[in-house]
Amino acid sequence: MKAVQVIGYHDKLQLNEIPDPTVTGPLDVIVKIGGAGVCRTDLHILEGQWAEKSGVALPYTIGHENAGWVHAVGDAVSNVAVGDKVILHPLVTCGLCHACRDGDDVHCENSDFPGIDTDGGYAEYLKTTARSVVRIDDSLEPSDVAALADAGLTAYHAAAKVARTTRPGDVCVVIGAGGLGHIGIQVLSAISGVTIVVVDRNPAAVDLAVEVGAHQGIVADGAHAPGAEPAGVPSHVEKVLELTDGKGAQAVLDFVGEGGATAEGIAMLRRAGNYFVVGYGENIDVPTIDVISTEINFIGNLVGSYNDLTELMTLAAQGKVTLHTTKYALDDFQQAIDDLDAGRVRGRAILVP
Amino acid sequence: MKAVQVIGYHDKLQLNEIPDPTVTGPLDVIVKIGGAGVCRTDLHILEGQWAEKSGVALPYTIGHENAGWVHAVGDAVSNVAVGDKVILHPLVTCGLCHACRDGDDVHCENSDFPGIDTDGGYAEYLKTTARSVVRIDDSLEPSDVAALADAGLTAYHAAAKVARTTRPGDVCVVIGAGGLGHIGIQVLSAISGVTIVVVDRNPAAVDLAVEVGAHQGIVADGAHAPGAEPAGVPSHVEKVLELTDGKGAQAVLDFVGEGGATAEGIAMLRRAGNYFVVGYGENIDVPTIDVISTEINFIGNLVGSYNDLTELMTLAAQGKVTLHTTKYALDDFQQAIDDLDAGRVRGRAILVP
Amino acid sequence: MKAVQVIGYHDKLQLNEIPDPTVTGPLDVIVKIGGAGVCRTDLHILEGQWAEKSGVALPYTIGHENAGWVHAVGDAVSNVAVGDKVILHPLVTCGLCHACRDGDDVHCENSDFPGIDTDGGYAEYLKTTARSVVRIDDSLEPSDVAALADAGLTAYHAAAKVARTTRPGDVCVVIGAGGLGHIGIQVLSAISGVTIVVVDRNPAAVDLAVEVGAHQGIVADGAHAPGAEPAGVPSHVEKVLELTDGKGAQAVLDFVGEGGATAEGIAMLRRAGNYFVVGYGENIDVPTIDVISTEINFIGNLVGSYNDLTELMTLAAQGKVTLHTTKYALDDFQQAIDDLDAGRVRGRAILVP
Amino acid sequence: MKAVQVIGYHDKLQLNEIPDPTVTGPLDVIVKIGGAGVCRTDLHILEGQWAEKSGVALPYTIGHENAGWVHAVGDAVSNVAVGDKVILHPLVTCGLCHACRDGDDVHCENSDFPGIDTDGGYAEYLKTTARSVVRIDDSLEPSDVAALADAGLTAYHAAAKVARTTRPGDVCVVIGAGGLGHIGIQVLSAISGVTIVVVDRNPAAVDLAVEVGAHQGIVADGAHAPGAEPAGVPSHVEKVLELTDGKGAQAVLDFVGEGGATAEGIAMLRRAGNYFVVGYGENIDVPTIDVISTEINFIGNLVGSYNDLTELMTLAAQGKVTLHTTKYALDDFQQAIDDLDAGRVRGRAILVP
Repeated sequence: MKAVQVIGYHDKLQLNEIPDPTVTGPLDVIVKIGGAGVCRTDLHILEGQWAEKSGVALPYTIGHENAGWVHAVGDAVSNVAVGDKVILHPLVTCGLCHACRDGDDVHCENSDFPGIDTDGGYAEYLKTTARSVVRIDDSLEPSDVAALADAGLTAYHAAAKVARTTRPGDVCVVIGAGGLGHIGIQVLSAISGVTIVVVDRNPAAVDLAVEVGAHQGIVADGAHAPGAEPAGVPSHVEKVLELTDGKGAQAVLDFVGEGGATAEGIAMLRRAGNYFVVGYGENIDVPTIDVISTEINFIGNLVGSYNDLTELMTLAAQGKVTLHTTKYALDDFQQAIDDLDAGRVRGRAILVP
Repeated sequence: MKAVQVIGYHDKLQLNEIPDPTVTGPLDVIVKIGGAGVCRTDLHILEGQWAEKSGVALPYTIGHENAGWVHAVGDAVSNVAVGDKVILHPLVTCGLCHACRDGDDVHCENSDFPGIDTDGGYAEYLKTTARSVVRIDDSLEPSDVAALADAGLTAYHAAAKVARTTRPGDVCVVIGAGGLGHIGIQVLSAISGVTIVVVDRNPAAVDLAVEVGAHQGIVADGAHAPGAEPAGVPSHVEKVLELTDGKGAQAVLDFVGEGGATAEGIAMLRRAGNYFVVGYGENIDVPTIDVISTEINFIGNLVGSYNDLTELMTLAAQGKVTLHTTKYALDDFQQAIDDLDAGRVRGRAILVP
Repeated sequence: MKAVQVIGYHDKLQLNEIPDPTVTGPLDVIVKIGGAGVCRTDLHILEGQWAEKSGVALPYTIGHENAGWVHAVGDAVSNVAVGDKVILHPLVTCGLCHACRDGDDVHCENSDFPGIDTDGGYAEYLKTTARSVVRIDDSLEPSDVAALADAGLTAYHAAAKVARTTRPGDVCVVIGAGGLGHIGIQVLSAISGVTIVVVDRNPAAVDLAVEVGAHQGIVADGAHAPGAEPAGVPSHVEKVLELTDGKGAQAVLDFVGEGGATAEGIAMLRRAGNYFVVGYGENIDVPTIDVISTEINFIGNLVGSYNDLTELMTLAAQGKVTLHTTKYALDDFQQAIDDLDAGRVRGRAILVP
Repeated sequence: MKAVQVIGYHDKLQLNEIPDPTVTGPLDVIVKIGGAGVCRTDLHILEGQWAEKSGVALPYTIGHENAGWVHAVGDAVSNVAVGDKVILHPLVTCGLCHACRDGDDVHCENSDFPGIDTDGGYAEYLKTTARSVVRIDDSLEPSDVAALADAGLTAYHAAAKVARTTRPGDVCVVIGAGGLGHIGIQVLSAISGVTIVVVDRNPAAVDLAVEVGAHQGIVADGAHAPGAEPAGVPSHVEKVLELTDGKGAQAVLDFVGEGGATAEGIAMLRRAGNYFVVGYGENIDVPTIDVISTEINFIGNLVGSYNDLTELMTLAAQGKVTLHTTKYALDDFQQAIDDLDAGRVRGRAILVP
C-alpha cells in the first residue's frame, strides 16, 4: 500500500510502497483510512522534537488523527464489524492497567500512539485494536471527522469537565478562539448552561466564536484599562470583571497557556473557581497564598478517554459540533504540509487516500 | 389591600379587604404581587385535602406561585432592594438547620409555605423574607414567570439531576408531556446532551413536546406490541427498547407516577439506570431481585432549592425555558378557578392584581 | 486434574478426573486454585434453580469464589506473572463494551461467570483471563480470602457507596448482621465516619457486629413499640428513630431484603436519605407520594467491579477486613456441602485442593 | 467584662474592662468564652500585618478560635439554647448570598471575622450569631476544642477533600507534621482508606505523626538520592517514588507551601493526581506542559464550612481527633503570647477566662 513516511528528521516526508498491515492477534483491527488529519505536531515530528521522546525507529508512517472503515478484524473483536465506519482513539491501550479499568484510558500504563511511536494514518490502511475503534453514525464521513480524533477530543474532554462543574448562569471564560476553542465553545453550548465569554487577540476569530455559540466576545487588544485598580490591568481582564459584577468567572478554560494567558486568566477567576489548563507553553506561577485565600483550583486536561470520543461523536452526528476542513489527496501530502506551515489552511487539513 | 381568601373548606374563595402586611423583622421583605399562579393544588385546598396537613387557621390568603416587585425590606436585607423584580421560592426557610446550611433548603426543618400554611399571593402584597426572594432579569415579567416558582422549579430540579448523571448520547425517557414535562424537556435540551424520548397518551401533547425539544415522541396508545416477549408488553415500551438496541434508557424522568407509569417506566430502564420519580399517585412495586440484578436506582425529587430557582431564572432570561400563560385580573379569580377546574386553561392561569 | 462437577440437577456433585486447562489465547491465565468458597448459590445450582438462566452444559465444574496462584499466562498478559498470588473477580469480562470501558465491568455485555455458566474453581486449576486476576499481598493466603471474591465484594461495593455519600456523624443503619453484614460493617468502619447502627433478629450476631465495628446494636425481637405513633411500629424501628432525634438515618444498608425488612428500613430513613438494596426476596412497595415528599432514593447494588476488588484486597491486607473460614480438603466437598446445608459452618466454608 | 485588646500595632496587648456585649438582633448569640486559642496569626496582627487588610478600628478584642457556653440568644435563634456548649465557626456569615446558600459559607460575600475585623474571644463574652455556633457533645470541653475552630477546621476541610477523591490503597503524602498535619492525619485515618505517608524535616514530629496514624514516616533530611534520575532529586522524594512503584502518590496534602515544598510535592505526584494546597509562602511555579501531560490538579483549601466544623466535632467527640493544649488563665495572656513567640508551647496555647 501507499504510506507517507518519516525517513529522517529535517528531511521531507516520502511516499513509500509498503506491505499492507495484517491481522495477527485476536483483537486486531485493520482500518481502511478515510481521512487523516494534518496537525502541527506532524511538523514538530519532522523537526525532530519528538525523536527522543517517542524513540520510534525510522522509517515509519505518521498521522495520529484518523478515521475510516473497518477492513479486517481478529477473532475476538466484538464491538465492530468489517465495513463499519469508525474514528480512532489516538491511543492503543491495554485494558488491563488500573487506569484502563477505571475508564481513564488516556493514562494507560502500556499504550502505543500510532503516528507518533508506531505506524499511523497517512496511508491506505492502519493497524490498531478493538479497544481504539469508535463506530460513527452513518451520517458522518471519516474525512469530515478525522480531526476530531485528537484536537477535537482534547477540547471536548476539557469542556465536558467545565459542564460537569458549573450550573446555568455561571460564567466560563474561554481563552483562545482557534480550532480547539471553537470546538470547546460548541460543546459548552450544547451540554451546559454556562454563559460563554470568549477572549482572543484576533477579532475575526472572536466573531466566529460568537457565531458558533459564545455569548460575549472580547478582543484582547493589548490596551490597559484606564484608571483600573491595580494599574496595569489589561482592558480585556477588566471587561470580564465588569461582566461578572467584579467577581470574576466560575470557570476559565484556557486553550492558550502562553504569552501571559495564565496570569490574565487567574485574574479573571472568581473565588472557588476552576482554571482548566489545556494550552501550554508558559508556567503557571501563582502565590500559594492566592490559591488558598481564594480557594481556586487548577485542573489539568489531557486528550480524552475512549468514552469521551464516543460522546463527541454523538454531538457531531447531531450537528452540534462541526469543524471546517480542507481536503487533500494522499499523494498531495507535501502541499498539505506546506500549506499548514505557511498558515494557508482554513480549519484543518485532511489527507484522503 | 385586596386578598382572595379561603373562608371555609368546600366554600368558594372570597375577595376580602385586609390590612397591608408590614415589615416587623430585619429580614422581612414585602412583595407587591405581579402574578400568582393558579394551581391544581389550590382546588385541592378548597376541597379540604390539605386542612389537617397544613393546620392553617381560616380565613387565610392562598396562592403559592408568586412573583412581583420588592415593596419594602427590613434592616438586614442585603440581597434585594425596593423596586427589584423578584420571584419567590415557595418556602420561607430558616437558614440555620443542617439542610439550609447544605444548600438543600427544601428540607429545611423550620419552614413556612405561603399559600399553604400561611398567607400567600392571591393578593396585592405578600410578606416573605430575604431568604426567599430571587431577583429576576429585567427582560422577564413577574406575571410571565410566576408559575415557574413551584411547578417549573420542580421540573427543573429533577431535570438538572438527569443532566448531572448522564452523558451525550445517553437516552432519557420523559414520561408525561404536560406542563412539568414541557419544562423538563426544555431544561434537558438546554443543559444536557441526552437524547430525549417523550411518552404520553395525548398525541397533541407529544407533538408539542417534540416542538420544544424532544428528539422522539411516542404516543402511548394502549396497544400491545405484537409478538412481544414477554407477551403483553405495551407497544410504547417496546418502541423505547427498539430505540435503545433493546437495552433501555439510561434515565427515566417520570412526571406521571400513576396509572401504571412506574411499571412501564421500569421496563424501559437500562442496567445501572436511574429512575427519577416526580409525579405521584401509585406505588413503586418492584422485586428487590430486579433492583439488584440490574443495579437500578430510584431517585426522589421534591420541588427545588433557592439556588435551583436562580438557575431556572437564568434559563428563562435566556429564552431557553418558556411557559404559556393565560392571565386574569385578581378580581376575576373565580373565573380562573372555574376555567382550571373545567380544563379550559391553556398553559397556566395567572392572577394579576 | 481433579474437579468437582455438576453431573445432573438434583444429583450429588461428583469428583471427576478431567484434562488440565491450557492457555489458548494471548490473555488467558491458568490459576492453580488455593481456595474455593462454598456458597449457598452452589446449593441452589444443584437444585436446578440456575439451569435455565445459565444454560450451562453438564457436566461442568462449579465454584465461583476463587483464589490461588498464577500457573501459566498467555503472551499478552502484562498485569500478573507465573507464581503471583491472586484472587479472581467473579466475572470474565470483555474490556470492549461501554460498561467495561467505564470502570463498571460488572455490567459487561459479554461476560462469562465461571462456576455458574462455565467451569469454576472446585478443582485444581481454573482458566480465566488477565482481566479477572487481582494480585494480592504476600501477607494474604488464597484460602483465607477466596470468599471475599463474591460475597465480600458485594458487601464492599455497597458499603463503599455509603461511604462516598455520607459524612462523619451521619447514621447508617445496617440491616442484617450475617456474613455480608459483618464485611459491610468492617468496611464502613475503615473508610467512613458514619455512626453504624446494626439491626438483626439474632442477638449473637448483633453482639459480633458490635465487636467488629458497629457503634450500636439493636435486636429486632418482634416487639412493637408501646404507645408508638403510628401504632404498630416495631420497637427496633422506634429505637433507630430515638437514636436520630426522630429524624431517621441518612443511610440504610439492607443485606436482608425480605421478611418485611424493606418497609421497616424505609421507616428508619431520614428525609433525603439513601436506601441501599443488597439483600433480596421481597418487593420494595412504596407510595410514590412518600418517595417525593421525603425525596428519598433507592440504590441498587450488584457485586462490584475489578477495581472494587482491588480496594477490598487492600483493606484485607491491612487487617481491616477479615472473615472467619472453615477449610475442607477438595476431596471432602460433600462434607462441606452437607455442613453448609445443615447450618453447621461457622463463617464461610472453603475447599482447598 | 475583661477583654484583652489591641491598642496599637507594635504595642503590647492590654487587658481592659469593657461593657458586656448584649443581644440586639433576633439572631444574636452571646457566648461565655470557655477557651480561646492563641494563634500565630495573633502575633502577626500585633506586628500590623493585618492592619490594612482588616481595617479594624482600635482598640478591639482579638482571638479567633473560640468555644464556650451560650449565655443569651435573640428571639429567632432556633438551633441553640442558653447553656449549650458550643464551638464557634470563625466567620459570621450572612446566609443570603449564593455561597451561603450553597453550603460554602467560607466564601460568604458579607462576612465578619471576629478577632480579626471585629471583637473576638480573648474575653469573658463574645457576641456572634446563630449561624456561627455549633453545639458540641457533652463529653467535650470548650477549652479542649477551641483550637479546632480554625486550625483544626482548615486541616479537616482539606483532608476530607482527600478522602472524597481517593480509594483504599491510594497513597496520600502529607507534607508537614505540625499541628495541622497531625489533625489531617487523624482525619484521613478516621474517614478514608488511603495509605498515609508523612514527610517532615523534624524526626520527632514524624514519629508523632506515625503514632497518630501515618503508615509511613519519612524525614526530609536534605540528603539527595544517590544516583537518582534526574540527579539532584532529594532522597525523601525518591523514597515516596519507591513506595509507589515509581508512579508517585494519588494525593499530596501540603501543609507547608514554602521552602521548596511545592516543587518536591509535585515530583511526588502521580499522573492524574491531586495536589491539595493548604500551607502557603512560596509560589506554585509549574510548566503548563507538565500540568497537561500528566493531567494533574491543584486544589486550593480555605478554612472550612459550618457543616465541616460539625463533622469535625463528631470526630472529636468520638475521640478520633485530639489536640494537645497548654492552658493559661486569661490574665496570663502575655505569658501565652511570649511562650508562643519563643516556641515554648507544646500543642496549642489556650486562654481560659
